[in-house]
Amino acid sequence: MPFVRISLLKGKSNDHIRAIADSVHQALTETFEVPADDRFQLIDQYDPEHFIYDPDYFGIHRSPDVVFINILASNWRNTAAKQRLYKRIAELLSANAGLRLEDVQVNLTPNQREDWSFGNGLASYVKEPQASAATSAVA
Amino acid sequence: MPFVRISLLKGKSNDHIRAIADSVHQALTETFEVPADDRFQLIDQYDPEHFIYDPDYFGIHRSPDVVFINILASNWRNTAAKQRLYKRIAELLSANAGLRLEDVQVNLTPNQREDWSFGNGLASYVKEPQASAATSAVA
Amino acid sequence: MPFVRISLLKGKSNDHIRAIADSVHQALTETFEVPADDRFQLIDQYDPEHFIYDPDYFGIHRSPDVVFINILASNWRNTAAKQRLYKRIAELLSANAGLRLEDVQVNLTPNQREDWSFGNGLASYVKEPQASAATSAVA
Repeated sequence: MPFVRISLLKGKSNDHIRAIADSVHQALTETFEVPADDRFQLIDQYDPEHFIYDPDYFGIHRSPDVVFINILASNWRNTAAKQRLYKRIAELLSANAGLRLEDVQVNLTPNQREDWSFGNGLASYVKEPQASAATSAVA
Repeated sequence: MPFVRISLLKGKSNDHIRAIADSVHQALTETFEVPADDRFQLIDQYDPEHFIYDPDYFGIHRSPDVVFINILASNWRNTAAKQRLYKRIAELLSANAGLRLEDVQVNLTPNQREDWSFGNGLASYVKEPQASAATSAVA
Repeated sequence: MPFVRISLLKGKSNDHIRAIADSVHQALTETFEVPADDRFQLIDQYDPEHFIYDPDYFGIHRSPDVVFINILASNWRNTAAKQRLYKRIAELLSANAGLRLEDVQVNLTPNQREDWSFGNGLASYVKEPQASAATSAVA
């Protein structure tokens, strides 16, 4: 269900980028009840003049290795699950991609289960055929 | 009102991309009560290493033609309308852009009517001049 | 807290782009209670065929200078604050980047305070250590 956008400065190796993407997905499976094969990720790389970040906001010192991870996900997880997700993403990006914990930034965009179609023109997580509710009420 | 981001692999023709964009907009007008001239769409193309998708999640087999369509839209539509939207997008992308139904993936990002300014510094869908509520209460 | 994505056509100067980014941030500090150092912005530039906009929707005439500003922000601000934000962004982009008021388009993506991790694996705006609530209840 999550749709992930990973943004970072240009110039990193494909191995580094893949380690980041793999780690984000692993954290989602471990803390957010995301199936292993529910993986959709886009990577955007930026020139420095188009990638603007404060190097010290919130008392956290960021380097040019900073990564912004945006996750669109259904908002049924509670705050504790979100805390576990942030912690695990940072741990894995440190272990697997060599990132400093300060350089891992995550934000979530909430939506709902009916906001996803994984193909075939269907609302994948909606059980009832609500689109025909009006007609079936007549039937 | 909707703001649409369409993401796909590099290498598709401009005609193909235009057929996708036109079809997504047509579906929005037919199922989501979007005016014909309320059209704002960005197209992002990716190298394969930056465009990561599971080829089989949810039992749906995806090809390298897969398209991800993200729609930021006010969340007053109900689930039935969303189901009609997904169905119509898939139908039109199949008919007009030659895509397999399995390769059409849609997700919605919900916001509210006060979250839009289409220009001139105004909240386009807010009727009352709420910004001056404090002062007009005195007047 | 806000995460800003600014999209515009290719071909603008870096000075123009910087004036836009600076102005959007200034407006956020003035109207949305955003700290001066809480600044995170990505700039995306597009070829015309990938940047589709209606030139007249809502009776507002747009030129190729049009800028789309998406702001992911916690949704505790009220409509009046949003109205002040739109007004101030348009004013400053006109004054500092020479844009017509018609060419300034803003949309907001709402999330909540627990949806942000600015680094170190922590939910930056969550006070309680809710992730360990289960174990501390035992202690």
